[in-house]
Amino acid sequence: MPSNQKVWTVEVRVTLKPSVLDPQGATVQRALHSMGYTELTGARIGKYLQLTFNPGLSRAEVEKQARRMCDKLLVNPVIEHYQLNLIAPQTVTA
Amino acid sequence: MPSNQKVWTVEVRVTLKPSVLDPQGATVQRALHSMGYTELTGARIGKYLQLTFNPGLSRAEVEKQARRMCDKLLVNPVIEHYQLNLIAPQTVTA
Repeated sequence: MPSNQKVWTVEVRVTLKPSVLDPQGATVQRALHSMGYTELTGARIGKYLQLTFNPGLSRAEVEKQARRMCDKLLVNPVIEHYQLNLIAPQTVTA
Repeated sequence: MPSNQKVWTVEVRVTLKPSVLDPQGATVQRALHSMGYTELTGARIGKYLQLTFNPGLSRAEVEKQARRMCDKLLVNPVIEHYQLNLIAPQTVTA
Protein backbone atom coordinates (compact mmCIF):
# COMPACT_ATOMS: atom_id res chain seq x y z
CA MET A 1 0.00 0.00 0.00
CA PRO A 2 1.60 3.31 -0.99
CA SER A 3 1.99 5.91 1.73
CA ASN A 4 2.55 9.59 1.11
CA GLN A 5 5.47 10.84 3.08
CA LYS A 6 6.67 14.37 3.40
CA VAL A 7 10.30 15.39 2.99
CA TRP A 8 11.18 18.56 4.84
CA THR A 9 14.06 20.82 3.93
CA VAL A 10 15.47 23.22 6.49
CA GLU A 11 17.31 26.36 5.43
CA VAL A 12 19.78 27.68 7.98
CA ARG A 13 21.21 31.18 7.70
CA VAL A 14 24.20 31.72 9.94
CA THR A 15 25.37 35.30 10.42
CA LEU A 16 28.04 36.93 12.52
CA LYS A 17 26.63 38.94 15.42
CA PRO A 18 26.53 42.65 14.61
CA SER A 19 29.30 43.42 17.11
CA VAL A 20 31.72 40.91 15.55
CA LEU A 21 34.21 42.15 12.95
CA ASP A 22 33.76 40.62 9.50
CA PRO A 23 37.07 40.94 7.62
CA GLN A 24 35.79 38.81 4.72
CA GLY A 25 32.80 41.12 4.30
CA ALA A 26 35.01 44.19 4.56
CA THR A 27 37.27 42.83 1.82
CA VAL A 28 34.29 42.16 -0.45
CA GLN A 29 32.97 45.66 0.21
CA ARG A 30 36.35 47.22 -0.67
CA ALA A 31 36.57 45.12 -3.83
CA LEU A 32 33.08 46.20 -4.91
CA HIS A 33 33.88 49.85 -4.13
CA SER A 34 36.99 49.69 -6.28
CA MET A 35 34.83 48.23 -9.07
CA GLY A 36 32.66 51.34 -8.92
CA TYR A 37 29.79 50.20 -6.70
CA THR A 38 30.10 53.19 -4.40
CA GLU A 39 26.46 53.09 -3.27
CA LEU A 40 27.22 49.99 -1.22
CA THR A 41 27.51 50.84 2.48
CA GLY A 42 28.02 47.40 3.96
CA ALA A 43 28.61 43.73 3.21
CA ARG A 44 28.44 40.95 5.79
CA ILE A 45 29.10 37.35 4.90
CA GLY A 46 27.66 34.29 6.56
CA LYS A 47 26.85 30.68 5.83
CA TYR A 48 23.79 29.16 4.23
CA LEU A 49 22.93 25.51 4.76
CA GLN A 50 20.23 23.28 3.35
CA LEU A 51 19.45 20.21 5.43
CA THR A 52 17.14 17.45 4.24
CA PHE A 53 15.57 14.80 6.41
CA ASN A 54 14.12 11.32 6.12
CA PRO A 55 10.52 11.26 4.93
CA GLY A 56 7.93 10.78 7.61
CA LEU A 57 9.37 13.12 10.23
CA SER A 58 6.93 15.71 11.52
CA ARG A 59 7.55 19.42 11.16
CA ALA A 60 8.12 19.75 14.89
CA GLU A 61 10.62 16.89 14.95
CA VAL A 62 12.56 18.28 11.99
CA GLU A 63 12.74 21.70 13.56
CA LYS A 64 13.89 20.26 16.89
CA GLN A 65 16.64 18.20 15.26
CA ALA A 66 17.84 21.08 13.08
CA ARG A 67 18.00 23.39 16.08
CA ARG A 68 20.02 20.84 18.01
CA MET A 69 22.45 20.38 15.10
CA CYS A 70 22.97 24.14 14.99
CA ASP A 71 23.57 24.34 18.72
CA LYS A 72 25.94 21.37 18.83
CA LEU A 73 27.95 21.68 15.62
CA LEU A 74 26.95 24.16 12.94
CA VAL A 75 26.90 27.47 14.77
CA ASN A 76 29.36 29.10 17.16
CA PRO A 77 27.03 30.81 19.64
CA VAL A 78 29.77 33.13 20.90
CA ILE A 79 30.04 35.01 17.62
CA GLU A 80 27.18 33.79 15.44
CA HIS A 81 23.39 33.94 15.19
CA TYR A 82 21.22 31.61 13.16
CA GLN A 83 17.75 31.57 11.67
CA LEU A 84 15.85 28.48 10.55
CA ASN A 85 13.35 28.37 7.73
CA LEU A 86 11.38 25.18 7.14
CA ILE A 87 10.49 24.73 3.49
CA ALA A 88 7.10 23.26 2.65
CA PRO A 89 7.61 19.54 2.12
CA GLN A 90 7.49 17.74 -1.16
CA THR A 91 5.43 14.60 -1.01
CA VAL A 92 7.17 11.36 -1.87
CA THR A 93 5.02 8.40 -2.83
CA ALA A 94 6.69 5.27 -1.52
CA MET B 1 14.23 70.27 6.11
CA PRO B 2 14.33 66.62 7.14
CA SER B 3 13.82 64.05 4.43
CA ASN B 4 12.84 60.44 4.99
CA GLN B 5 15.13 58.09 3.14
CA LYS B 6 14.84 54.38 2.82
CA VAL B 7 17.74 52.02 3.40
CA TRP B 8 17.42 48.74 1.55
CA THR B 9 19.14 45.55 2.58
CA VAL B 10 19.62 42.76 0.07
CA GLU B 11 20.03 39.17 1.20
CA VAL B 12 21.92 36.96 -1.24
CA ARG B 13 21.85 33.19 -0.93
CA VAL B 14 24.52 31.51 -3.01
CA THR B 15 24.23 27.75 -3.48
CA LEU B 16 26.15 25.19 -5.45
CA LYS B 17 24.22 23.86 -8.43
CA PRO B 18 22.65 20.48 -7.67
CA SER B 19 25.02 18.66 -10.03
CA VAL B 20 28.14 20.05 -8.32
CA LEU B 21 29.81 17.98 -5.61
CA ASP B 22 29.81 19.59 -2.18
CA PRO B 23 32.63 18.03 -0.12
CA GLN B 24 32.13 20.52 2.72
CA GLY B 25 28.46 19.57 2.98
CA ALA B 26 29.31 15.87 2.80
CA THR B 27 31.76 16.28 5.67
CA VAL B 28 29.18 18.07 7.78
CA GLN B 29 26.64 15.36 7.02
CA ARG B 30 29.07 12.61 8.06
CA ALA B 31 29.94 14.48 11.26
CA LEU B 32 26.25 14.87 12.13
CA HIS B 33 25.59 11.20 11.37
CA SER B 34 28.41 10.14 13.68
CA MET B 35 26.85 12.35 16.38
CA GLY B 36 23.63 10.35 16.08
CA TYR B 37 21.57 12.50 13.71
CA THR B 38 20.80 9.60 11.42
CA GLU B 39 17.55 11.10 10.08
CA LEU B 40 19.58 13.64 8.10
CA THR B 41 19.69 12.70 4.42
CA GLY B 42 21.59 15.64 3.00
CA ALA B 43 23.53 18.79 3.82
CA ARG B 44 24.59 21.40 1.26
CA ILE B 45 26.56 24.47 2.22
CA GLY B 46 26.52 27.83 0.53
CA LYS B 47 27.14 31.48 1.25
CA TYR B 48 24.82 34.08 2.68
CA LEU B 49 25.48 37.78 2.15
CA GLN B 50 23.79 40.89 3.45
CA LEU B 51 24.39 44.00 1.37
CA THR B 52 23.29 47.45 2.48
CA PHE B 53 22.99 50.48 0.26
CA ASN B 54 23.01 54.26 0.51
CA PRO B 55 19.66 55.73 1.51
CA GLY B 56 17.61 57.18 -1.31
CA LEU B 57 18.16 54.42 -3.87
CA SER B 58 14.98 52.95 -5.31
CA ARG B 59 14.08 49.30 -4.95
CA ALA B 60 14.67 48.74 -8.67
CA GLU B 61 18.08 50.41 -8.57
CA VAL B 62 19.17 48.41 -5.51
CA GLU B 63 18.09 45.15 -7.11
CA LYS B 64 19.89 46.02 -10.35
CA GLN B 65 23.13 46.85 -8.56
CA ALA B 66 22.98 43.74 -6.35
CA ARG B 67 22.38 41.54 -9.38
CA ARG B 68 25.34 43.08 -11.17
CA MET B 69 27.61 42.57 -8.13
CA CYS B 70 26.62 38.91 -8.03
CA ASP B 71 27.28 38.46 -11.73
CA LYS B 72 30.63 40.28 -11.67
CA LEU B 73 32.18 39.23 -8.37
CA LEU B 74 30.15 37.37 -5.77
CA VAL B 75 28.91 34.33 -7.64
CA ASN B 76 30.66 31.85 -9.91
CA PRO B 77 27.99 31.16 -12.53
CA VAL B 78 29.67 27.96 -13.68
CA ILE B 79 29.01 26.15 -10.42
CA GLU B 80 26.74 28.40 -8.37
CA HIS B 81 23.18 29.74 -8.32
CA TYR B 82 21.99 32.76 -6.38
CA GLN B 83 18.74 34.14 -5.07
CA LEU B 84 18.13 37.74 -4.02
CA ASN B 85 15.73 38.84 -1.33
CA LEU B 86 15.13 42.55 -0.81
CA ILE B 87 14.31 43.36 2.80
CA ALA B 88 11.72 46.06 3.46
CA PRO B 89 13.61 49.27 4.07
CA GLN B 90 14.05 51.00 7.38
CA THR B 91 13.40 54.70 7.15
CA VAL B 92 16.24 57.01 8.15
CA THR B 93 15.36 60.58 9.05
CA ALA B 94 18.21 62.77 7.90
